[in-house]
Amino acid sequence: MKASAISHPNIALIKYWGRQDDGGRGLNLPLNDSVSMTKEGISGGSRLQSHTTVEFSGSIEKDMMVLEGREICGRELERVRLVIDPLRKIAGVESHFSIRSVNDFPTAAGLASSAAGFSALALASSSALGLDLTREELSTWARLGSGSAVRSLHGGFVYWHKGSSHETSFAEKVCEGGSFQLNAVIVIVNEGRKGISSDIGHEHAYTSPFNEIRTELSQKEALLVRSAILDNDLRTVGSIAERNSKYMHAVMMTSDIPLFYWQGETLKVIKSVHAMRERGIEVYFTIDAGPNVHCLCRPEDAPEVQKELECQDHVLRTIVARPAKDPHTIDEHLF
Amino acid sequence: MKASAISHPNIALIKYWGRQDDGGRGLNLPLNDSVSMTKEGISGGSRLQSHTTVEFSGSIEKDMMVLEGREICGRELERVRLVIDPLRKIAGVESHFSIRSVNDFPTAAGLASSAAGFSALALASSSALGLDLTREELSTWARLGSGSAVRSLHGGFVYWHKGSSHETSFAEKVCEGGSFQLNAVIVIVNEGRKGISSDIGHEHAYTSPFNEIRTELSQKEALLVRSAILDNDLRTVGSIAERNSKYMHAVMMTSDIPLFYWQGETLKVIKSVHAMRERGIEVYFTIDAGPNVHCLCRPEDAPEVQKELECQDHVLRTIVARPAKDPHTIDEHLF
Repeated sequence: MKASAISHPNIALIKYWGRQDDGGRGLNLPLNDSVSMTKEGISGGSRLQSHTTVEFSGSIEKDMMVLEGREICGRELERVRLVIDPLRKIAGVESHFSIRSVNDFPTAAGLASSAAGFSALALASSSALGLDLTREELSTWARLGSGSAVRSLHGGFVYWHKGSSHETSFAEKVCEGGSFQLNAVIVIVNEGRKGISSDIGHEHAYTSPFNEIRTELSQKEALLVRSAILDNDLRTVGSIAERNSKYMHAVMMTSDIPLFYWQGETLKVIKSVHAMRERGIEVYFTIDAGPNVHCLCRPEDAPEVQKELECQDHVLRTIVARPAKDPHTIDEHLF
Repeated sequence: MKASAISHPNIALIKYWGRQDDGGRGLNLPLNDSVSMTKEGISGGSRLQSHTTVEFSGSIEKDMMVLEGREICGRELERVRLVIDPLRKIAGVESHFSIRSVNDFPTAAGLASSAAGFSALALASSSALGLDLTREELSTWARLGSGSAVRSLHGGFVYWHKGSSHETSFAEKVCEGGSFQLNAVIVIVNEGRKGISSDIGHEHAYTSPFNEIRTELSQKEALLVRSAILDNDLRTVGSIAERNSKYMHAVMMTSDIPLFYWQGETLKVIKSVHAMRERGIEVYFTIDAGPNVHCLCRPEDAPEVQKELECQDHVLRTIVARPAKDPHTIDEHLF
């Protein structure tokens, strides 16, 4: 009862920020539908992947997980159990688990490491337990560990239906990466861990005066972006993604715990994107809950965008990403 | 028929951003009431004042103005006429004007140079024309040149009633500087001119999805801040001013011409203010339409706030300001 999986993070084009009130059940039901690209690194020394091995065995004395070489405990281990406990129950297995997981990219720096990690975890766990679940079903279980992990159960472009219950809040594939040619030039200005986790941020979203209008707009924009992806319309996808990202950061900065994920360097990259667009390069930015910037453009423009940004003093490095293939199990185990 | 006046800029605690639709009459009627401190520099080599001399004479061949040593023309001169033409009409004077104006602080960098300039202009002009107008009346004429100039016709703390017509949109004094002990440590990170004028920004405010809620909140917050000033309650004034400033910048960044007045350095100062507050110093930030930051604190804390900020690499210089006295005429003419 051992299996391994590879999964990728995703970059949200329409953001998830803030949760429905579910009476404290921890369902991670978002306020609005969201849309993302699951991303695979093709340059910059990182394929952007989580590799996770899960084993269930009667000989394991307690549930344990080693993440990036460090044994996790407390709240972190609880989050892992939120995903695995229901899967164990479905499979009728009571054994403890042992997990190892590694990322080839920075953890907790707004690059969606938890999305990659929890989707790999859900996939490897269900495989180790011999369960035959659809990706949509699996996505609901990954969601319990980290909301945005729901979208990493598919490759390509993905739509997360917010739903109103555990079963109805799942991710669906919009299309494979091949039909909408998009690259993300990821501009890394800080690889450190975030000061305040997104988890706390989600809980405070409702305290911003802009939360309600952001939610309403995002719900509409999710549908518009889905259509535009299917129409191969970069201008619509990019311009909506850029403003949707600004809406989220406006909510963050105006919450009662003001979250300024942007750094000075983040603003410099934003201004570079504006300047490139004025010069005729079709490029848009989007920023998750961290200081790093994703620059969305056509694959043929990615080298120029990368070249423009990677030479700037305030940029640590860049990674070019394309739509990833579906997450999958592999035979290579970590222990 | 010659007079000179000294006037000061003001820092808004509740911001003016966006105008009422007045059918193109150029009345500069704001969407919401606003509140400000008129400010006088007490350190940093700048008293923060505009000194303006106005003369009307039959021997002057055409309306002309020299601002900071440069003769202005076109749209800039038109704005001056918007203020002076009605005053000439009231006085029954048809002579041309000659004006010289100098500031002892950077122009058009978000330090409200136009507020200081147009209030000095209105005051000097009415004096040169021998008019006997109240400060409230004068404020309405200054408003036609630059909206926020309305608030610089008083010293101390000032409330601008948005009004619904020329006469009803005027500034009223809340109290003198002595009764609410507030300093602003002005942190200058860029002294250059703005890329996009506030004038254009005001016209695009309504395109932000957050404009309406910002307006509603600001209207309520203006009343709260006025009360808190009269109660000598820094915590309320500072915390409302800080969030009101964030609301304005959220609107700016999400307009269809996205205005990012913040620079990387601006964000660094914001974070320093957060950090100082966590260490127990009662200090709040507010940012006008530019990259520079005003840090609001008690006079006894100003030296520590200034010391903390002025030594940072990204800070060009700091100026400590206190509430100014009323703008006034002086005998010293510039020509």
